[in-house]
Amino acid sequence: MAGNTFGNFFKLTTFGESHGEAIGGIIDGCPAGVSIDLKAVEFQMRRRRPGQSTIVTQRKEADTVRFLSGIFEGKTTGTPIGFIIENTNQKPEDYTHIKEDFRPSHADFTFHKKYGHRDYRGGGRASARETAARVAAGAIASQLISGISIKGYVCSVGSIELKKPYQELDFNTIDSTLVRCPDLDIASKMIAKIKEVKKQGDTIGGTITCVIQNIPVGLGEPVFDKLHAQLGKAMLSINAVKGFEFGSGFRGSKMKGSEHNDLFNEDGTTKTNLSGGIQGGISNGMDIYFRVAFKPVATLMQIQQTINHKGEKVEMQGKGRHDPCVVPRAVPIVEAMAAITIADFWLANKLSKL
Amino acid sequence: MAGNTFGNFFKLTTFGESHGEAIGGIIDGCPAGVSIDLKAVEFQMRRRRPGQSTIVTQRKEADTVRFLSGIFEGKTTGTPIGFIIENTNQKPEDYTHIKEDFRPSHADFTFHKKYGHRDYRGGGRASARETAARVAAGAIASQLISGISIKGYVCSVGSIELKKPYQELDFNTIDSTLVRCPDLDIASKMIAKIKEVKKQGDTIGGTITCVIQNIPVGLGEPVFDKLHAQLGKAMLSINAVKGFEFGSGFRGSKMKGSEHNDLFNEDGTTKTNLSGGIQGGISNGMDIYFRVAFKPVATLMQIQQTINHKGEKVEMQGKGRHDPCVVPRAVPIVEAMAAITIADFWLANKLSKL
Amino acid sequence: MAGNTFGNFFKLTTFGESHGEAIGGIIDGCPAGVSIDLKAVEFQMRRRRPGQSTIVTQRKEADTVRFLSGIFEGKTTGTPIGFIIENTNQKPEDYTHIKEDFRPSHADFTFHKKYGHRDYRGGGRASARETAARVAAGAIASQLISGISIKGYVCSVGSIELKKPYQELDFNTIDSTLVRCPDLDIASKMIAKIKEVKKQGDTIGGTITCVIQNIPVGLGEPVFDKLHAQLGKAMLSINAVKGFEFGSGFRGSKMKGSEHNDLFNEDGTTKTNLSGGIQGGISNGMDIYFRVAFKPVATLMQIQQTINHKGEKVEMQGKGRHDPCVVPRAVPIVEAMAAITIADFWLANKLSKL
Amino acid sequence: MAGNTFGNFFKLTTFGESHGEAIGGIIDGCPAGVSIDLKAVEFQMRRRRPGQSTIVTQRKEADTVRFLSGIFEGKTTGTPIGFIIENTNQKPEDYTHIKEDFRPSHADFTFHKKYGHRDYRGGGRASARETAARVAAGAIASQLISGISIKGYVCSVGSIELKKPYQELDFNTIDSTLVRCPDLDIASKMIAKIKEVKKQGDTIGGTITCVIQNIPVGLGEPVFDKLHAQLGKAMLSINAVKGFEFGSGFRGSKMKGSEHNDLFNEDGTTKTNLSGGIQGGISNGMDIYFRVAFKPVATLMQIQQTINHKGEKVEMQGKGRHDPCVVPRAVPIVEAMAAITIADFWLANKLSKL
Repeated sequence: MAGNTFGNFFKLTTFGESHGEAIGGIIDGCPAGVSIDLKAVEFQMRRRRPGQSTIVTQRKEADTVRFLSGIFEGKTTGTPIGFIIENTNQKPEDYTHIKEDFRPSHADFTFHKKYGHRDYRGGGRASARETAARVAAGAIASQLISGISIKGYVCSVGSIELKKPYQELDFNTIDSTLVRCPDLDIASKMIAKIKEVKKQGDTIGGTITCVIQNIPVGLGEPVFDKLHAQLGKAMLSINAVKGFEFGSGFRGSKMKGSEHNDLFNEDGTTKTNLSGGIQGGISNGMDIYFRVAFKPVATLMQIQQTINHKGEKVEMQGKGRHDPCVVPRAVPIVEAMAAITIADFWLANKLSKL
Repeated sequence: MAGNTFGNFFKLTTFGESHGEAIGGIIDGCPAGVSIDLKAVEFQMRRRRPGQSTIVTQRKEADTVRFLSGIFEGKTTGTPIGFIIENTNQKPEDYTHIKEDFRPSHADFTFHKKYGHRDYRGGGRASARETAARVAAGAIASQLISGISIKGYVCSVGSIELKKPYQELDFNTIDSTLVRCPDLDIASKMIAKIKEVKKQGDTIGGTITCVIQNIPVGLGEPVFDKLHAQLGKAMLSINAVKGFEFGSGFRGSKMKGSEHNDLFNEDGTTKTNLSGGIQGGISNGMDIYFRVAFKPVATLMQIQQTINHKGEKVEMQGKGRHDPCVVPRAVPIVEAMAAITIADFWLANKLSKL
Repeated sequence: MAGNTFGNFFKLTTFGESHGEAIGGIIDGCPAGVSIDLKAVEFQMRRRRPGQSTIVTQRKEADTVRFLSGIFEGKTTGTPIGFIIENTNQKPEDYTHIKEDFRPSHADFTFHKKYGHRDYRGGGRASARETAARVAAGAIASQLISGISIKGYVCSVGSIELKKPYQELDFNTIDSTLVRCPDLDIASKMIAKIKEVKKQGDTIGGTITCVIQNIPVGLGEPVFDKLHAQLGKAMLSINAVKGFEFGSGFRGSKMKGSEHNDLFNEDGTTKTNLSGGIQGGISNGMDIYFRVAFKPVATLMQIQQTINHKGEKVEMQGKGRHDPCVVPRAVPIVEAMAAITIADFWLANKLSKL
Repeated sequence: MAGNTFGNFFKLTTFGESHGEAIGGIIDGCPAGVSIDLKAVEFQMRRRRPGQSTIVTQRKEADTVRFLSGIFEGKTTGTPIGFIIENTNQKPEDYTHIKEDFRPSHADFTFHKKYGHRDYRGGGRASARETAARVAAGAIASQLISGISIKGYVCSVGSIELKKPYQELDFNTIDSTLVRCPDLDIASKMIAKIKEVKKQGDTIGGTITCVIQNIPVGLGEPVFDKLHAQLGKAMLSINAVKGFEFGSGFRGSKMKGSEHNDLFNEDGTTKTNLSGGIQGGISNGMDIYFRVAFKPVATLMQIQQTINHKGEKVEMQGKGRHDPCVVPRAVPIVEAMAAITIADFWLANKLSKL
């Protein structure tokens, strides 16, 4: 109830502060008999890892996942999968200067008010470092639902947008640019933009599109746990996310029914897919696609006016090692949360009918 | 787990099909001692009710909520609040013609595939009729958190948009127009648009903005149950919703950190509020505002090509009594889901610290 | 979280006070496609019903279950099954005399202290009347797991004990005596005992044995949701229950391992069954059997000294229509809670392995 | 749902096999601001630890709890408390001989059937080693509800019983004997008995009484989450437990209402306490006491006939280092589960009324 668990069947519970000893989690509900490829976990961890390129934070973390239980002789046993990721590169001295200050548009103020007592070092539990545990768990979830493809990519950085529909993109090129945008031309503009704002000590927002393919019909639980509702929650729970839309999204609100309805082919597929692969909260077998909006990172390398916990005016300037733009590293996080959500509903759906 | 419960502390579980005997629900977790004004429940039910005006469905339902337990001598007792709403105006004969057909962009196909056996009359459980139970529960939730104001209004119908920020609107005028838009000029354009599409046998989408004011600091539970994540899920679980954004939303993804950060005043309020009243998933005491996109209603009074459950091509035309645009009636539903969500976190927050 | 839901997959949520308008519940998670025989529901309701014989309370309640949703054309649809049971024979005037008094060994005092505001009529939510909803739901659960047999019977009233092991009994005779003890000789002694204490205005306790047969291997979820742990909770949640033991139970604590171990046959069955069909919290395919202890009903037709809510001494005498012994009517309640528990684990187990 | 989480508000999720890398857990929902004394955690861990005396298993485990998050500068922060306990003294070679054999009255057979794939070393997840995580979490829970006293003690070993009521015992002497029985005379008989069965390569069962004092009125949530129902589940979830009774327990089923009712004093306390401190599932402020039955340990140092996973007859003899009697080490486990349960309801009760 305190919000550190996600999922009902494939359940992930996480713990850990950015500058504590370790972060980690427990996956409960993963069936026995899933073959686990630890290399696949490492691969996703590397895609999220700080220090991976010149356009992300230069902080270094090994981010090695140590699995402690639930996997035996290469397969899941049906028992909980515990794992930890040690925090090896804590530099709490980077944060002592902000111990009593509330950084603008950070969670310092709200954590202080809510809990009274907080770990102020590097954002503590509010740090995006906690998403490392999500990526580890997502990589396990992906192996449970191995027939289903989940691909995320950056579709905008600031005002630079990739407008092509996903069907025209080659997902194999996503990782070929630092920014994880599968259009090389636009990718290089995005990278230039990120370098520019970084130089200014500034940051910039962006969006990620995620496409789920080869998904069976029937995933999603009406009424409250509609597939897109839970996917939306999954995405909105990621640090810095401000919006979520699937299928036609906000654009769909401007359309007429006669334009928006997806007519059926005789095999049950649809001629168009403005529905985004979900009808009544349940997957219809067509591609699921959705878009996630990320705000610009709040920590700036510029001087900002703010207050401390006594309500006194203070000046501050970011000294840590921060991302100028969060979306390149957020791609595997989006994929991980999508995988966990789909795995959860994939299990749930096994109980839908006799 | 089967998706008919919302909330962790203030928990609503609902049941009922559009053409079954009754719909209803159980609220569990409402504390004892809340004074309940049943008129306030009726008021919200009337705002959602079909047949309320010329621009909504002409179906008539009394939508009388019968509370069966948990309220004694005008106050909650802390025990579960059971309630039912009889289905008085079922016309199943309106639906026998679609018994075996899958309506485009409806849940007929997905329910059929997921469950095998389904109540095909009027959408059954997938009908927006189930939202009547949400409105009833939301009206109870509102009375638990009576100091907090939750106001929804229509901010677009098709391409007709209300662009003024909410601060410039008079919420008292929301109900003075049939479309529930607090700008009378734009409201009349919206109404004309809805009448036009109705005449065409067509439908149209729209968006709703919701503003939550006078909210205490501290609501929301990191990591997965961030306030906006749960609000997003709440909204996305409403029939026909395609997108959710809060604060700066998708627009925020185009901004720089130096533009987007909300600087503090000395009293802990912020000079701007692009954060939308939430930092790190926790309310910061500023107004919470968000926007919800609704697709056009899928049932058209036009002939459409579709298939039946044998995969044969068939022609169909809506014969029921349907809404040409869902947003006017969706305003109280958005408010109800917001109220249930806030009530839930309001209770949760009582356990945050010793 | 407020305690009115039981089960994780096959989930029952109930509502209702003994003297409110109605009681009822929602079953969420029952798969689609289960054929429902409403006669079987009525049969169990009759076995629990007050007024069924001379040795139970003479209160009359029709106890007709009205199913409102989730069952269509004789089968479950996978959507929630809502049901209500109207309270037709409320005589609140029987209770006005105790409005302000705390009956000894009742929940009046604890409800008053916990909630401040309570429905004092007939025990309100603390009345065993709420178990009618359990019996209705249990009868649905039984039809989901129709191959599994669940039989309860009275094995003691006061000091009169049925000492024969269940294997020597004919379960078909359980309902042939008013007391639901399948040994006719002992049954008549039990009945005489109940009549005797009734004449004295007194009450008496008893125990029920329940046997679950033809159960598949694999039900139960380690670590905390062991099959017997959840069965124990299910039983202990029934009004008046003071103890639970399964297999060798308390007697097993006096034994040596060499006496207690159940040795295997080559087919995986065991030569003895002191384990009671459960190893490590998981069913092993042998019969599950357990015993439940009920205290004597607290309402006496004798004068008792007690206090009112001001802490003043008062005298009281039961005026309502109460059971002199609860066990005959508790048999279907025990069976219902066992059925709900087993149905829940039966669904859970479908997700144990790939 | 997969059973590795206990509690609704103060929630413990655990992981780990006896011979994996580590065991551990996450406590979610502990409020911020609780001062944590790590010595108190260590104290309880030592009481559960193998190798602590001559009458318990001679296996050696350091059982050092490493807290990884959620505690900062000596106080809880409201974020999840992650912890691990490394498995330092694995001797998997002790178990290779049983890799394919099913030990009688162990969980080998049921885990094999349920999951297909299992960690056979030392019982894996079914080993009582997992209770170390419970004891660590229980020691945190105790510090949240620091005003409430929870004391367990051994009240029988085989047929040697401590018959004195708990009121006549000095709880300070519990730890003064190896067997944790606060009557020195009976304790020495118990110790002799355990040594005798150990010599025979045999084992023996026993019972533990637990007394909860200084508890506030109002803990427990009707209907299904009655305080004693959840306590019962907590105890029954401990390895080797076969029965649970509270207050008058099974003995109460033989009594008349006129004997069993607890009459009130004017201050709301009761003259007797056969209710065991709970009425209607809610604490009434009187002492809560209950008794838990443990079967004899199934691993014998004698030759036993059994089968392997092919259904072939095999002979086996325990070679590991096992307890001849589980109750001395189970005392802190019973206390831990009681503390977690009470902490959970203590939090829940803060939401009972406005």
